[in-house]
Amino acid sequence: MQPYELSLTQAADAVRARQLSPVELADSVLERIEQVEPRLQAYVTVTAEQARRAAREAENDIAAGRYRGPLHGIPMGLKDLIDVAGAATSASSRVRADHRAQADSTVAARLAAAGAVLVGKTHTHEFAYGLTTPQTNNAWDRERVAGGSSGGSAVAVAAGTATFTLGTDTGGSIRVPAALNGVVGLKPTYGLVPRHGVTSLSWSLDHVGPITRTVEDAALVLTALAGHDPHDPASLTTPAIDYRPGTGMDLTGLRVGVPRNYYFDHVDPEVEAAVRRAIAQLESLGARLVDVEIPLTRYIQATQWGLMVPEATAYHERTLRAVPELYQADVRILLEAGELMPAGDYLRAQRSRTLMRQEWARMLQYVDVIAAPTVPATAVKAGQETITWPDGTAEGVSDAYVRLSSPANITGVPSLSVPVGHDTAGLPIGMQLLGRPLGESALLRIGHAYQQTQPAPTLAPAV
Amino acid sequence: MQPYELSLTQAADAVRARQLSPVELADSVLERIEQVEPRLQAYVTVTAEQARRAAREAENDIAAGRYRGPLHGIPMGLKDLIDVAGAATSASSRVRADHRAQADSTVAARLAAAGAVLVGKTHTHEFAYGLTTPQTNNAWDRERVAGGSSGGSAVAVAAGTATFTLGTDTGGSIRVPAALNGVVGLKPTYGLVPRHGVTSLSWSLDHVGPITRTVEDAALVLTALAGHDPHDPASLTTPAIDYRPGTGMDLTGLRVGVPRNYYFDHVDPEVEAAVRRAIAQLESLGARLVDVEIPLTRYIQATQWGLMVPEATAYHERTLRAVPELYQADVRILLEAGELMPAGDYLRAQRSRTLMRQEWARMLQYVDVIAAPTVPATAVKAGQETITWPDGTAEGVSDAYVRLSSPANITGVPSLSVPVGHDTAGLPIGMQLLGRPLGESALLRIGHAYQQTQPAPTLAPAV
Repeated sequence: MQPYELSLTQAADAVRARQLSPVELADSVLERIEQVEPRLQAYVTVTAEQARRAAREAENDIAAGRYRGPLHGIPMGLKDLIDVAGAATSASSRVRADHRAQADSTVAARLAAAGAVLVGKTHTHEFAYGLTTPQTNNAWDRERVAGGSSGGSAVAVAAGTATFTLGTDTGGSIRVPAALNGVVGLKPTYGLVPRHGVTSLSWSLDHVGPITRTVEDAALVLTALAGHDPHDPASLTTPAIDYRPGTGMDLTGLRVGVPRNYYFDHVDPEVEAAVRRAIAQLESLGARLVDVEIPLTRYIQATQWGLMVPEATAYHERTLRAVPELYQADVRILLEAGELMPAGDYLRAQRSRTLMRQEWARMLQYVDVIAAPTVPATAVKAGQETITWPDGTAEGVSDAYVRLSSPANITGVPSLSVPVGHDTAGLPIGMQLLGRPLGESALLRIGHAYQQTQPAPTLAPAV
Repeated sequence: MQPYELSLTQAADAVRARQLSPVELADSVLERIEQVEPRLQAYVTVTAEQARRAAREAENDIAAGRYRGPLHGIPMGLKDLIDVAGAATSASSRVRADHRAQADSTVAARLAAAGAVLVGKTHTHEFAYGLTTPQTNNAWDRERVAGGSSGGSAVAVAAGTATFTLGTDTGGSIRVPAALNGVVGLKPTYGLVPRHGVTSLSWSLDHVGPITRTVEDAALVLTALAGHDPHDPASLTTPAIDYRPGTGMDLTGLRVGVPRNYYFDHVDPEVEAAVRRAIAQLESLGARLVDVEIPLTRYIQATQWGLMVPEATAYHERTLRAVPELYQADVRILLEAGELMPAGDYLRAQRSRTLMRQEWARMLQYVDVIAAPTVPATAVKAGQETITWPDGTAEGVSDAYVRLSSPANITGVPSLSVPVGHDTAGLPIGMQLLGRPLGESALLRIGHAYQQTQPAPTLAPAV
C-alpha cells in the first residue's frame, strides 16, 4: 500500500508512530498527482514546493517531539474559495484572475495550526454556483461529472491526490460530489465551522466542511475546524469538543428515521436499493427504524432558490456590472436573474425557512438521525442536461442533484454523506445521515459504525 | 387631586395601602374619558362595563388579601394592534371591520395576570404605518397631531384617560407620540417584550412597550411585560428581572454620550435647548458627558425603509389584493410600493443593519447611554405636510419624526423618551436615552433620577 492510499486516520497513526514521515507522505501524494491529475483536473493549483517544505517542517517538529495531533504532516487540498494568505483564491473564475488573499481564512489558519500540509487549491463550480464542476472529471469515470460545487475536493480525496480536503456546501456542494465520487462529506450544523475568509455564495446557507475517505477521518478534521470565530457573524459560541467516534458498533437505543415521503421519490432504483440495504445494516447494528414524514416539502425548492439567488447576486453586484463577460454563461444568467427577484419572494423564502426549521426541530424530537439518499442518481455523463425518471418525467441535472441535499442547508441541520456501494455501472452511491442541530457526534458515530461493517474504502481508479 | 391624575406609582401605592379602591380609580378614569374623549379621540373602543367589573374583582381580591402587585386594579389602555380575547383588534382600519381575536396576546395575558384593568383599545395610525395617528388629537393642542403610530396610547396617558398604556414601536411609534404629548415612552431591547398576538408592521423592527407618566411607572409595566415567550421567534431567553429604579439620584460613574453628529442636525432650536438643559442636569447629578460620533448615519433612512416596506407588504399581501380600497390612501400607497421593491434592496438593508449593530455595539462600549432629542420638532398642526428648517430646507413631517427614533429600531437597542419641558407654544419636548442591548435598568435609573429633579408631571389640559 502506498502512502497516498492511506486514510487520514491510518496516515496519522503511522506518522505519530514514526512509521511514516510527512515527507514520504507528501512525496507520495505529489507523485500520485503527477500521475492522475492530467486526467482528473481536480486542482486549480498544486503547490508542490511549499508542500514539501511544510512536510519537512512537520517532520522536524515531530522528530523534535513537537507533535501537534492527527493532522500534523497530513496532505490536504482546499477548495479554491478558501483564502490562503499570499495565494490567489480563484473561485475557478476568470473574474478572480488578479486575486491574492491578504490573510488566511479561519479554517486555513486552524488547519495550518494543526500542522496539515497544503498541497493545492481544488476546483469549484465557478463561485460554487452549480452542481457539476465542469473543469473536473469524476474519479470513477472520466466521462462523467464530478458533481459540485466542491468537485475538485471530492475527486482529489477519491483518487488519492489529497488525504483530505475542505469543501463548501450551500445546497449540497460538499455532499453531492462526495456521493458521486464515493467519499465521505460532512456539512456541519450552520454556524459550527467559521466561514471568515471563504468566498460566499449565499451567506444564510453557506457551510464549510471536510471531505475524507472515512467517517473517522471527517471527525478528525471537524475537531480541528469547529469553534467560535467572532469574524463570522453566524458563528455559534458552542464550546469546541472532540468529535472522534468511539469504536463501538452497537447502535442499540438509537432511532433512525426513514422518510415515508420526499427522499425516495424520483430516486434511481439502484440508489434506493443501496440506501435501503445500508439502513437495514443500521438496524442489524441495533438501531430502531422509525417512519418519519418530512414536513413542508413543497416549500423546499422555492425556499432554497428564493434565498440563494438574491444573496448570490448581492455578493457579486459590483463585478457583475463591471465585468459580466468574465463569468461563465450558466453562472452569469443565474446572477442576472437575481437582479429581477422581488423583495417579497426573498421574504417569503425567509419565512418558509423559519417554518421549516420549526417543523424539522419537531420531527427530530422523535428520531436521532434521518437516513436517506444523498443524491437521487449516480454521476451523469458530462454535458447531460436532464435525468429521465421511470415514470417518464424529466428533471434538470442540477435540480435533481440539489433536491435531497438542500433541506439541510435551509434548516441548518448537519448532514453526513457516506458511501454505500456502487451501481451496476460501477459508480458510487451515497447515503446521507441528517441529524439534530449540533448533533454531529451522533451522525459520526452511526456513520463510523456502518463503515466498520463494510470492506475498507478503496481509491477510485482515476483512469 | 382626582384619582385619574395619579401616576401609576402613586395609584399603586394608594391601592396597596387601601387608601384608594380600584373601583374609585376606574370610575374616575371613565368619568375623565366621558369628559375629554370627545375632543381627543384617543380610543377606538371604551369598555366601561368590563372595566368596572374588573375593578370590582380587583377590589374584592385585594380586600381578601390577594394583592398581586403594583398593576393590580390599575386602569390601562392597549393600542388596538394588541389582541384581547373576544374583542376586535381594529388596527384603526376598515380592513379589520369583522375582526375578533381568539386569544389574548402574550402582553395582554401578562397584564391581566398582574391585575391591570382594561378600559379600552387606543387608536393607532392605520396598521401602525404612519407617524401622526390622524384620528386622534394632541392632548396639549387639539389642532395638532398626536404623533404616531401609538397616538391614542400617548394621548390617553397625557390626558388622564388611562393610567398607563401599551404602544408598539417600529420606527419610533412609542417614543414619537410620547414626546409630542409630554409623557414617558419606552421601546425596550428587541426581543425583550413578546409580540405574540400583536399585529405586525415589520417583524424585524417591531417592539411593544409602555407609555406612562413617569419613568418609575414605565419600570413597573416593563417588569410585568418582559420575559421569554416561545411563541415569538425573536423573543430573548433573558431571565425576567425587576426593573424598578432605586431612589438614588447620584449618577457619579455613569458616562452619558452626547452625539457630535446627526442627533442635533435639523433640530428645532427650542427642542435642542431643552434637551441640552436636561443633559446638563444629568451632568449636575454626577454623570460624565462624553462626545460620541454616531456611526454609519448615511445608512439610517435607507435601512429603516428598506426593511420596513417589504416586510409590511408581505404581512398585508392577501388583504392588499382582496380589499385594497379599504386601506387609507397613505397606507395603501406604501404597501403597494413594497410590491415593487427588489430583493437586492432588502438584502442591502439587512446587511447595513448588521454593520450598524456592530458599530453601535462598539460605540456603546465607551458610554452607558446616549442622550438626544426624541423628535426634532414638537407637534405640528394637523394636515401640515412638511417642516422647514432654519437653513431653508424642507422635510416631510413623517421623515422628520422618524429620523431620530429609527436608529434604535434598526439596532435593537433600548430607548426611553422622557419629557424635558415645553416650547414657547406650550408644546411638550422629549429627550431620548439610548442604551446598550438589555440596558433598560441604566436608562430607567437615569431617567428616574432626572425626573426627580423636575416638578411633578402634570396632565395635559385636553381642552
